[in-house]
Amino acid sequence: MKKTALIMAGGRGERFWPRSRKSCPKQFLSLTNDGKTMIQLTVERILPLVNMEDIYISTNRDYRPLVREQLPDIPEENILCEPIGRNTAPCIGLGAVHIARKQEDALMMVLPSDHLIKYTSMFVSTLEAACRVAEAGENLVTLGITPDYPETGYGYIRFRPGASMDSSAYEVDCFVEKPNLEKAQEYLASEQYLWNSGMFVWKVSTVLSNLEKYMPETYSGLRTIQAAIGTGEEDAVLEREFAKLPSVSIDYGIMEKARNIYVIPGTFGWDDVGSWLAVERINKTNEEGNVVNGNVITVNTKNTTIQGTEKLIAAVGLRNLVIVDTDDAILICAKESAGEIKKVLENLRVCNRNEYI
Amino acid sequence: MKKTALIMAGGRGERFWPRSRKSCPKQFLSLTNDGKTMIQLTVERILPLVNMEDIYISTNRDYRPLVREQLPDIPEENILCEPIGRNTAPCIGLGAVHIARKQEDALMMVLPSDHLIKYTSMFVSTLEAACRVAEAGENLVTLGITPDYPETGYGYIRFRPGASMDSSAYEVDCFVEKPNLEKAQEYLASEQYLWNSGMFVWKVSTVLSNLEKYMPETYSGLRTIQAAIGTGEEDAVLEREFAKLPSVSIDYGIMEKARNIYVIPGTFGWDDVGSWLAVERINKTNEEGNVVNGNVITVNTKNTTIQGTEKLIAAVGLRNLVIVDTDDAILICAKESAGEIKKVLENLRVCNRNEYI
Repeated sequence: MKKTALIMAGGRGERFWPRSRKSCPKQFLSLTNDGKTMIQLTVERILPLVNMEDIYISTNRDYRPLVREQLPDIPEENILCEPIGRNTAPCIGLGAVHIARKQEDALMMVLPSDHLIKYTSMFVSTLEAACRVAEAGENLVTLGITPDYPETGYGYIRFRPGASMDSSAYEVDCFVEKPNLEKAQEYLASEQYLWNSGMFVWKVSTVLSNLEKYMPETYSGLRTIQAAIGTGEEDAVLEREFAKLPSVSIDYGIMEKARNIYVIPGTFGWDDVGSWLAVERINKTNEEGNVVNGNVITVNTKNTTIQGTEKLIAAVGLRNLVIVDTDDAILICAKESAGEIKKVLENLRVCNRNEYI
Repeated sequence: MKKTALIMAGGRGERFWPRSRKSCPKQFLSLTNDGKTMIQLTVERILPLVNMEDIYISTNRDYRPLVREQLPDIPEENILCEPIGRNTAPCIGLGAVHIARKQEDALMMVLPSDHLIKYTSMFVSTLEAACRVAEAGENLVTLGITPDYPETGYGYIRFRPGASMDSSAYEVDCFVEKPNLEKAQEYLASEQYLWNSGMFVWKVSTVLSNLEKYMPETYSGLRTIQAAIGTGEEDAVLEREFAKLPSVSIDYGIMEKARNIYVIPGTFGWDDVGSWLAVERINKTNEEGNVVNGNVITVNTKNTTIQGTEKLIAAVGLRNLVIVDTDDAILICAKESAGEIKKVLENLRVCNRNEYI
């Protein structure tokens, strides 16, 4: 069966401020040393499995120019612009009706655009296994990440260890929200939980029939939108109908309710790159433990991440900091205080300093 | 007797990098909240005692435009440009022959251009006392600072406690170099030592006769220069003769050898502003212990000095740092590592990156 992919690229994350701005969020930034942006890497990674013309990008109108610039080989009609953010269920549904219009039926991979994966060939093998499971029935397949440590920032998936479908896929017992540390430690010790990566594989027909069953109003709206694709009414209908859809995640709308949910554990070096702290995980640190890019001089500086540009940054006697320079703003942040970067953005919003947001 | 002043402004200090550059050293920077530069404050401070036309600025050719811009009321002929740096004895001698050419005899105050003084009226009173002692004989008078703590970065002056000339001046026993901490602690405990501030008061005739006695070749060169002042040969003679003078400090050349040396202890809130660490002493810190200038947002940041400009600086979770931004370079330095800023400059010199020096 034909393989297609929907890459979700509508996010407006703030945790990479000051590099990420409303006008250029994380998925369009390069956070690795290869100069490629997160979304470019996401596309490149799946090319062994999916043809370029079968890759769809879900984003919003503001980011259409960035998508076209960074992914010039994606057909223009495959760039799907949501008129308003409505969480992942309507986003995935919109992708499904677009693909369904072109193909009798197809396998559909759903992938975030702003995660990194270290071992591409292992990832591709895992996706292939997921495709086999998805194609074998009316199955909803999700990729779970084998946890290394009791992370409290991710959702978890509980699986039934005995209930392996083939050598790789397990039946899902339930999805659970971000736990506290104690719970996370229990999950880790139990060996029955995986991290929820937000990556899915299913047939287009399967996800649409599940939408019809568990989110009938959303399904009906999506079918109206589908009927207008390619007509003069397309934009107007999308604008009108999409706004009416409820804002619901695919996890809550379908995955937690549906049957035939499988998870495939992955160990392909996944990183959701949740904050500036991830930069030292995904780049090579030098012998002082620093990750340094740009025009930088360090003296007696250790375990510090510096993302500079042309402007000279002189770092003297520093420990455990993150420094990120841009044309109009520089962030200097203790690693242990990375969670407080959002307070800077709150301050900027309160003061109406939108030029920095 | 007429009071005159020579303000020494030829220094090329590096400790205020990146604000201070070869092209704009410390004395031409504003490090206080009032927007006035160090040399402007130095002139302002002595105006109760000295007329503007009797103030002389000793500098070098590169800085003449800065002096004219910052001190437009100083007569142009009072800006004395040394063709080459030759330490303080030739510098002061050049000032003395210029003043001697205009005045029969005069009192001459010699003042650095890059120190700060908190209590101006107490400073003026001390200078007046020094003038009285200087006028009363062939006396060389220096201002000593009553030490607060065992500083190892200054030279010290040992005085004879019993030998007070009037209520304020003491005979100087000897000048001593920068001590180690143990010595400095001894000096402090003995109550017989003052910090050497590098500020002097004497009659022009007194300093010239001492130059003649202890540095006869320098004296002879200076007299040759003096004879050419106002003639078409002035620049050529200065260029030729000044380069021949030995590079010697006034302390070593005269003060350590001459007789009739007096010191007046001062308690007028003197600060030599030796590094960025001084900024928190000379400015008001806020309740978090920060000194902040420019477009700055702080979150959970304490005891940190931030000198910004228009560019936004966001400081999150920081402790005990100095951050100094300029158009082309930013310094981020742990306070305890301020002494290592010179390593940044060494690196820049080695790499021939003169645009930053």
